[in-house]
Amino acid sequence: MPDPSFQLDPRLAADTVFVIDLVLCRVLLSRDGNYPWTILVPMRPGAVEIVDLDRDDRLALMDEIAAVSAALRDATRCHKLNVGALGNVVAQLHVHVVARFEGDPAWPGPIWGRHPAAPWDTAKRDALVETLRAALGSAAA
Amino acid sequence: MPDPSFQLDPRLAADTVFVIDLVLCRVLLSRDGNYPWTILVPMRPGAVEIVDLDRDDRLALMDEIAAVSAALRDATRCHKLNVGALGNVVAQLHVHVVARFEGDPAWPGPIWGRHPAAPWDTAKRDALVETLRAALGSAAA
Repeated sequence: MPDPSFQLDPRLAADTVFVIDLVLCRVLLSRDGNYPWTILVPMRPGAVEIVDLDRDDRLALMDEIAAVSAALRDATRCHKLNVGALGNVVAQLHVHVVARFEGDPAWPGPIWGRHPAAPWDTAKRDALVETLRAALGSAAA
Repeated sequence: MPDPSFQLDPRLAADTVFVIDLVLCRVLLSRDGNYPWTILVPMRPGAVEIVDLDRDDRLALMDEIAAVSAALRDATRCHKLNVGALGNVVAQLHVHVVARFEGDPAWPGPIWGRHPAAPWDTAKRDALVETLRAALGSAAA
């Protein structure tokens, strides 16, 4: 169950819009419109490294990475998924699941720290959030 | 069980040294001495995306990511772990588990595509391989 003392890091909050709470993770969509870019944040206060989650949470994280990956690929018809947990700047554990396209601004490099964020078309962003929310609803808390 | 038709991508083979075969993954160490950088390759012919592994394999992958993360952190006393599955250049599914240090050549950015590879001190590299192999031996195939 989510810990009621969980608080989203303010930088993650500022850079994203809310999609849905799953059993373990809060799912967010980046405000950077260069890429359809979701972020999963396990709702465990103090979590920093995947390996420091207990095993049940690690396996739940993998299930939720798979659920978000499938929903994001279905919604975007992307060419590739990129999955990463870095946390060198924002320590709160968070996992990026990014839809990549040949020819996107950072292709074939990683997306992190490469290009200035670009604004989303708000209607497209909101439509993606709704599509993801509908696809993930059955996995929600 | 490993599929006997599994073949390591030749670019991954050229850029790494062998550490150990676990139940699901072949564990490699990058020849780039800028970072202690392991790579896990699920021994499943044709695998490209984590989400396309079957669920048992996905959960085994998470267990092996955790085992390698713990072994690498214990061996290096790193400040942070970075975990990523990108595959934009080499399609064969592979997961990076990288020991990061404040002040390493790419810190706090991601390591991929940032800096030319630097040679390892061979004795240090071989010692790390041996340490990882010993730590991971109980999880081996």
